[in-house]
Amino acid sequence: MNSLEPLETGSPGVGLATIAPQPFPDSRKIYVQGSRSDLRVPMRKISQSDTPTAFGGEKNPPIFVYDCSGPYTDPEAKINLRQGLSALRQAWIEERGDTEISKTAVPLPSSPVFPKLARKPRRAKAGMIVTQMRYARQGIITPEMEFVAIRENLNRRAWLENLVAAGPMGKKLAALLSRQHPGESFDSAPPIPSEITPEFVRDEIARGRAILPANINHPESEPMIIGRNFLTKINANIGNSALGSSIAEEVDKMTWAIRWGGDTVMDLSTGRHIHETREWIIRNAPVPIGTVPIYQALEKVDGKAEELTWEIFRETLIEQAEQGVDYFTIHAGVRLAHIPLTAQRMTGIVSRGGSIMAKWCLAHHQENFLYTHFAEICGILGAYDIAFSLGDGLRPGSIFDANDEAQLAELKTLGELTSVAWRHDVQTMIEGPGHVPMQMIHKNMELERQWCHEAPFYTLGPLVTDISPGHDHIASAIGAAMIGWRGTAMLCYVTPKEHLGLPDKNDVKEGIIAYKLAAHAADLAKGHPGAQIRDNAISKARYEFRWEDQFNLGLDPDRARAFHDKTLPHETAKTAHFCSMCGPRFCSMKITQEVREFAAKKGLSESDALLRGMKEKATEFVQAGAEVYQKM
Amino acid sequence: MNSLEPLETGSPGVGLATIAPQPFPDSRKIYVQGSRSDLRVPMRKISQSDTPTAFGGEKNPPIFVYDCSGPYTDPEAKINLRQGLSALRQAWIEERGDTEISKTAVPLPSSPVFPKLARKPRRAKAGMIVTQMRYARQGIITPEMEFVAIRENLNRRAWLENLVAAGPMGKKLAALLSRQHPGESFDSAPPIPSEITPEFVRDEIARGRAILPANINHPESEPMIIGRNFLTKINANIGNSALGSSIAEEVDKMTWAIRWGGDTVMDLSTGRHIHETREWIIRNAPVPIGTVPIYQALEKVDGKAEELTWEIFRETLIEQAEQGVDYFTIHAGVRLAHIPLTAQRMTGIVSRGGSIMAKWCLAHHQENFLYTHFAEICGILGAYDIAFSLGDGLRPGSIFDANDEAQLAELKTLGELTSVAWRHDVQTMIEGPGHVPMQMIHKNMELERQWCHEAPFYTLGPLVTDISPGHDHIASAIGAAMIGWRGTAMLCYVTPKEHLGLPDKNDVKEGIIAYKLAAHAADLAKGHPGAQIRDNAISKARYEFRWEDQFNLGLDPDRARAFHDKTLPHETAKTAHFCSMCGPRFCSMKITQEVREFAAKKGLSESDALLRGMKEKATEFVQAGAEVYQKM
Repeated sequence: MNSLEPLETGSPGVGLATIAPQPFPDSRKIYVQGSRSDLRVPMRKISQSDTPTAFGGEKNPPIFVYDCSGPYTDPEAKINLRQGLSALRQAWIEERGDTEISKTAVPLPSSPVFPKLARKPRRAKAGMIVTQMRYARQGIITPEMEFVAIRENLNRRAWLENLVAAGPMGKKLAALLSRQHPGESFDSAPPIPSEITPEFVRDEIARGRAILPANINHPESEPMIIGRNFLTKINANIGNSALGSSIAEEVDKMTWAIRWGGDTVMDLSTGRHIHETREWIIRNAPVPIGTVPIYQALEKVDGKAEELTWEIFRETLIEQAEQGVDYFTIHAGVRLAHIPLTAQRMTGIVSRGGSIMAKWCLAHHQENFLYTHFAEICGILGAYDIAFSLGDGLRPGSIFDANDEAQLAELKTLGELTSVAWRHDVQTMIEGPGHVPMQMIHKNMELERQWCHEAPFYTLGPLVTDISPGHDHIASAIGAAMIGWRGTAMLCYVTPKEHLGLPDKNDVKEGIIAYKLAAHAADLAKGHPGAQIRDNAISKARYEFRWEDQFNLGLDPDRARAFHDKTLPHETAKTAHFCSMCGPRFCSMKITQEVREFAAKKGLSESDALLRGMKEKATEFVQAGAEVYQKM
Repeated sequence: MNSLEPLETGSPGVGLATIAPQPFPDSRKIYVQGSRSDLRVPMRKISQSDTPTAFGGEKNPPIFVYDCSGPYTDPEAKINLRQGLSALRQAWIEERGDTEISKTAVPLPSSPVFPKLARKPRRAKAGMIVTQMRYARQGIITPEMEFVAIRENLNRRAWLENLVAAGPMGKKLAALLSRQHPGESFDSAPPIPSEITPEFVRDEIARGRAILPANINHPESEPMIIGRNFLTKINANIGNSALGSSIAEEVDKMTWAIRWGGDTVMDLSTGRHIHETREWIIRNAPVPIGTVPIYQALEKVDGKAEELTWEIFRETLIEQAEQGVDYFTIHAGVRLAHIPLTAQRMTGIVSRGGSIMAKWCLAHHQENFLYTHFAEICGILGAYDIAFSLGDGLRPGSIFDANDEAQLAELKTLGELTSVAWRHDVQTMIEGPGHVPMQMIHKNMELERQWCHEAPFYTLGPLVTDISPGHDHIASAIGAAMIGWRGTAMLCYVTPKEHLGLPDKNDVKEGIIAYKLAAHAADLAKGHPGAQIRDNAISKARYEFRWEDQFNLGLDPDRARAFHDKTLPHETAKTAHFCSMCGPRFCSMKITQEVREFAAKKGLSESDALLRGMKEKATEFVQAGAEVYQKM
């Protein structure tokens, strides 16, 4: 590692330096090679131990899982937070020849920013639109599209072929681990293909049913896709506020969030050093970064919403565009006419951005300038390939307000804006609620599909009850799993601190894991091809008392191991053939295994044999009561 | 409090003594008087502060919530764990004149048991059946039935009448707080009545659609009801194992579990002192206690399943019946012929009781003795009013095994056994899975209703994915909420330690809260009358920055307060009119309030005015792009 000059004391970057990558236990970062040498798609390969001899002694295959942790889990990587990640997409962007060094001069803060970036910001050449949607509609498969196709397949074909080639036991294992319950879907859409092709990715992006957020000024990002026909994604919100936390803490939260499975991260900072915080985050982020630009615009007018102008907002958009933000939440659906619809609500407007725009609209008695300038915003986003996340500024903040007129009026407007964005070839997703009781969740998805033309839906939970402050990650994971099953493409996490305070690192992890399991449950329920392999593998490991494999295949190996060790701390217990919950005598898995062995020994392994046996014995249990017997 | 002689060092009761009741903040235990002086139904009354003047200044009514914490939250109560709770049902039981002091002599352990119980165990007089189901079918409304009717109504009528009587603001509050979204149900059953009458309770018990577990030897228990037309209940499992924990710890877990909302508690102890542990728990439990008697029977034969006999089991049943266990899990559905159906499973038999019985069946090559002796078991249960919890010994232990042939064959058998139990007037509920992906959950409920004649369903989760060890309370709360919505009457909690280790006190609380919120979400989704009042109240408090009320109305006031204080530790922050998450400038609720005030000041509070204003201004935003404009 390089030796670094320390940053000036008190500067916002203090505390940021080189860090050592931390791989997961028994896991290796692998890269699947694409069609060009600089197209290498990361995955996590989890090794498994052999099945104990008593259970058959077979070699268990490695399991490949989706990996958004970037170089931070690759022991080969050299990470220096002051230099940022390598720009893996830079060549792809430059090769396209449709961008140039930006000539826009945006006034930047005077405080120290990211120290080492030599690269200059780019933008589209005059008259060009440089979005993945534009390319897709022109029939072009970009390296980004190929990257996500490989990524979504999780090496499944090669994995199966290897297993089958390994002989009869491999074949048996392949059949066992791949078996999956059919999913259930709720419209007439064709099923998700069992193998994702680059052409399928292109087609989904072209028709707007998926987005690939990839700002040309964030070449460090590893391409990922958000759409109902792909793995369900999750977003983690971070960001400081006027009340606390340093840049170093926020960068730490970002790397922590992606370690546990955050597919994108939104930087919602509102305090001081907002530009600098974002710069440090983006330069070190292998995942797309989203923001809500109105927050920074508001800082520029000292928090006075009524002093916001289109010019200040536009300048903020460009500032963030040139830093590399991949998607913007834009609250253009909060129209003047919708605002009175919130007057009878229990909790009014709970979206920060929504309330800022509502205040502006009423102060000026004018239509929302994000709505009136929407075409211009499309122009800016198209010049950097930033995706819209059309904000639900009027989302319900309580069960009482769920699916009300204000919410649905805004959703309809978001559908209209989607059509406008698509006319400008700008990628678009739609934000959704919020707080919704279970029986009203599916309506949200149905209306979104219908009104927003199947643009990807991106919901915050929803929470299915309001009564669980301190545990709202759970209340919202329930709603998230259900709406994910219905086709929501990305789930914005909620941490245990929701409604109460700023999440710390531990809260970020709790939120991520709750959402990661909800997203996975949704993939299972949709019947996403191959989703069940990981469940099958962990269940097999569990049955065979392969404790280490059970820990490693789970979403949180650290906690699983710690919980196990709390009851059975000795290292030998990890090879013990009984459960720590019940002890040796009562472990049902142990008894089951004995049952199997017993049955095998006595030649009773077939139903027929048992049924024959039963017939002979039948007279014995007539005394059990003729009624029971007669029904046999 | 009495001064107590210390128990002998090393005796299992050490550490148990008097404890001080701990009420919840701003909450008072109230008792609603029934038709007789000794029928007093506990509820928790949560006081609220007034709305701040800026928000209207109204007096907010107290909120009544279901309370299963017993005397442990009543500051008036004197609690001495060595004496046990007072026997509130004793007179009701004796008055019926159908029971007598038991003459059965069950051999008991020689080690010290509960020190102070003077009362002798009772059982039905010869030829009598003393179950709530029997009484219900005879048209008798017992004090227990009246108790649960009052309990389920949560004082709602008086609450509403008081509010309405308080004048126009009270009337407005009543309308606001009572408003509720319609539920969605999945069959043609009539809706849940808005007020539960004792007659409705009787009828539901008579037809077997609800149970009221109330062993005559557990007169300390406060009656509660489990059925799809009542509030969704949750169960917490506790119990030591061969690997750890003392009696004092288990009693502590029981009082802890009911503090946070456990409606029943199952004592799954398998270690030493199994009889004594149970005695301490029952004597101090105001909630029904369930057990799995086969665990203790197995201890009596030194863990050798094949040495189990009907006689040993029968003796164990009577021993526990005379202690006061309110419901028994009986794995009578694990029939010999079902066992081979598990051979191709991923995780075999995961139920401890199921695997014990499977082992016995195969060892003897005989039908399960619980099945063949089922009528006799009914006879015993009917003599003490113990309810069946028909065990799902073949429940799936992995997503792979969900809804398989073994599981469904057993469910069908449980339906047959239900009919037998009902012929003996024995109350019965049906245990369900386990591990089931979301799209396959509803099938479980549908088949249970159909095959088990609407007997209450009692499920363990189900977990909707296998990949979250360490966080399985969340994976299972998702499934629990969904199956609860479909009509499951009681949800058996899963703690974060599931699959990994023995839950400690903290795990018990995590599991309870996750399930409490899942059960409540189910009540909202079913449209359970009045369920939304608590959500409405907490949301109103949240909107009005009444922090203390928000904490107190939630399921976990302690954590909510702690999380808030972590970001904003000063006492003044609890009256601050902004959110701790965003700080004063970005708090959307604050801005919303400003929007409302602004609108009121300018006379813009009506949609009409706004729309008129918009028309005048319309020319201004033509430049936004004709497309957007034309769609307005």
